[in-house]
Amino acid sequence: MTLFPLNPALAATFPPPVMEARRWLDGMVFPPERPLINVSQAAPVDPPPEPLRQAIAEAALTNPAAHLYGPVLGLDDLRLELAHQWSEAYGGTIHRRQVAITQGCNQAFCAVMATLAGPGDEVLLPTPWYFNHKMWLDMSSVNAVPLATGADLLPDPEHAAALITPRTRAIVLVTPNNPGGVEYPASLVRAFYELAQARGLALILDETYRDFDARSGAPHDLFADPDWDDRLIHLYSFSKAYRLTGHRVGAIVASESRLAEVEKFLDTVAICPNQLGQIAALWGMRNLRQWVAGERAEILARRKAMTEGLATLPGWRTLGCGAYFAYVEHPSPLPSPDFARRLVKEAGVLLLPGTMFMPAEDLAGQRQLRIAFANVDAAGIAQLMERLAQATP
Amino acid sequence: MTLFPLNPALAATFPPPVMEARRWLDGMVFPPERPLINVSQAAPVDPPPEPLRQAIAEAALTNPAAHLYGPVLGLDDLRLELAHQWSEAYGGTIHRRQVAITQGCNQAFCAVMATLAGPGDEVLLPTPWYFNHKMWLDMSSVNAVPLATGADLLPDPEHAAALITPRTRAIVLVTPNNPGGVEYPASLVRAFYELAQARGLALILDETYRDFDARSGAPHDLFADPDWDDRLIHLYSFSKAYRLTGHRVGAIVASESRLAEVEKFLDTVAICPNQLGQIAALWGMRNLRQWVAGERAEILARRKAMTEGLATLPGWRTLGCGAYFAYVEHPSPLPSPDFARRLVKEAGVLLLPGTMFMPAEDLAGQRQLRIAFANVDAAGIAQLMERLAQATP
Repeated sequence: MTLFPLNPALAATFPPPVMEARRWLDGMVFPPERPLINVSQAAPVDPPPEPLRQAIAEAALTNPAAHLYGPVLGLDDLRLELAHQWSEAYGGTIHRRQVAITQGCNQAFCAVMATLAGPGDEVLLPTPWYFNHKMWLDMSSVNAVPLATGADLLPDPEHAAALITPRTRAIVLVTPNNPGGVEYPASLVRAFYELAQARGLALILDETYRDFDARSGAPHDLFADPDWDDRLIHLYSFSKAYRLTGHRVGAIVASESRLAEVEKFLDTVAICPNQLGQIAALWGMRNLRQWVAGERAEILARRKAMTEGLATLPGWRTLGCGAYFAYVEHPSPLPSPDFARRLVKEAGVLLLPGTMFMPAEDLAGQRQLRIAFANVDAAGIAQLMERLAQATP
Repeated sequence: MTLFPLNPALAATFPPPVMEARRWLDGMVFPPERPLINVSQAAPVDPPPEPLRQAIAEAALTNPAAHLYGPVLGLDDLRLELAHQWSEAYGGTIHRRQVAITQGCNQAFCAVMATLAGPGDEVLLPTPWYFNHKMWLDMSSVNAVPLATGADLLPDPEHAAALITPRTRAIVLVTPNNPGGVEYPASLVRAFYELAQARGLALILDETYRDFDARSGAPHDLFADPDWDDRLIHLYSFSKAYRLTGHRVGAIVASESRLAEVEKFLDTVAICPNQLGQIAALWGMRNLRQWVAGERAEILARRKAMTEGLATLPGWRTLGCGAYFAYVEHPSPLPSPDFARRLVKEAGVLLLPGTMFMPAEDLAGQRQLRIAFANVDAAGIAQLMERLAQATP
């Protein structure tokens, strides 16, 4: 039976990749001596630290406002805390009123994009892209213009400039990159910012994985520009640093006038972000700086283990490795979706094929795989390498 | 400075009415002997009952999954519980797989509408409408076709039929109605269902306020049709019955194939509903049936006080009174937005003008006001009536 009415833009959007990959596990049995290694989703597998969980429980019991509607753009205290910490971290000036809180960073992207582009407009996305970005553009009938990257997975501003048309509205950069795992050099980010300035575009900088950047100091200097809010829109997620994926809290940093438009979208889609999640994020920001530093050190150790392990695999090639992700070329003659399904069966490993991060016509995705390694410890990474080494190409 | 780039569809959408009304309070001082009576938003002012708060706190402390990603369409147990309770309440058969959980009922509407209608399509909304429905259609470049109601605030199926064009995709009914406070008779709901069947449209039935319906038994018989899911899409909110507004949990009941499209939207905009809110909703459904019955009795008592009080006000006329809302005509020669602002200053009463629920060209809204009385007790309602009676028309 065909579904009707059906918005053709929704019909044309692909189904959620992570849910599709999860369905590959249906009916599979993994023996206890060789359990599934799930590196398909960028998600901590452990809950937040005990004191943060206690702070949530206490708010649930003693703070009536934790159960009631709040402001559309989020709790003032959380907006202020993020403004303070970001001003310090990036060496710039960010006001509370330039910060909005959302129900996760995916929603932050959708809200921002709704204010920027309508049907027929164009947005530049470096490939491999983050699939939910592409899905939102598809649903909104906005054209996602793929900006191919080289072997280093870094996009080229000159190449981007050549793709800009009168319908282009924004360029989206994700750094550290999902799925590529690469950290964009500050000079590259600035070159894109200057391109956005020169051409009257918005530059969306998704820094969901900023807390796990291997570099010290600010990853870019854009906020130091007193007029940063004329072009720059920054996105953040509280999910990774504080292990709050199940609470859905993200943020937008942008001009007040942009946030007035964002407020219309969020009022309609969310009414407000959930309060306990915001309370948890605020508690985390105020109390877990040292703990997050330890988390970062652990992720960086895993990254090192991944880089070293991948280098030993015959026929495999690492394109990027950082933050939560390794992005690799596999040695199999099979296209990556088939090889990924073979890895589930043969190796007990669930990861995502590069085709999920690419336009259908881009054949590079057929050689590539994303490994979200952040929730696998050193022993697990050793196991993973052993299984990949033994897999039939 | 003009904002650029700016999606014209967003620019054309009006700002959130509740936030606008809140700004009317800026700089106002309300003396302690006559505090503000805020009847602008349909929101409980008290938190959920203590045992529910304890259940949330316990989950935060002892259930690691409460902090992690869950399925896009929500927790299986909650989907199942709603399917069971609805099957019983409506005398029909609803499966778990026909239920999706969302980050609040506003998001349920947006997700469903995204699957139904794209730019240039049309959707019938009875007026006065719920403003966030209109805002989403504006943002999506879908044409909201106003379906004027009579003095009883009930839409007429024959009138609706005459407005249907080849671009029409859906009819939206809210019952009990926001802002009108009227309960649509079962026969009227069925007449719209048959119209939707005859013309190949979706019928969206937003039953956010179903728990406060004054009638006993099922408010309509649509779920008893074995093929209900061919046309019917039902929306629900956990916010009102369980006082969970700050947790953002709502639901969609629709066909599995519709929910496969909804899943694309929710994956992109939400990833998943927040877990503690879902745990709270499930606990409420399983344990608070008797408590909700008491809440309903209290709301019905307030409704009676409102109906009786409004009848004594000279020059005022009640168009609808039920669920959380009274919808009235005021006696002032001023347009309703001006009269509403006068009421803030003169009477210490914040309510919303009818113009916020109407197309700009519809003059009826200029005589009308919505009073969200659910969070004002009997004494407060007596106070409210006194202040309205004394207000300069």
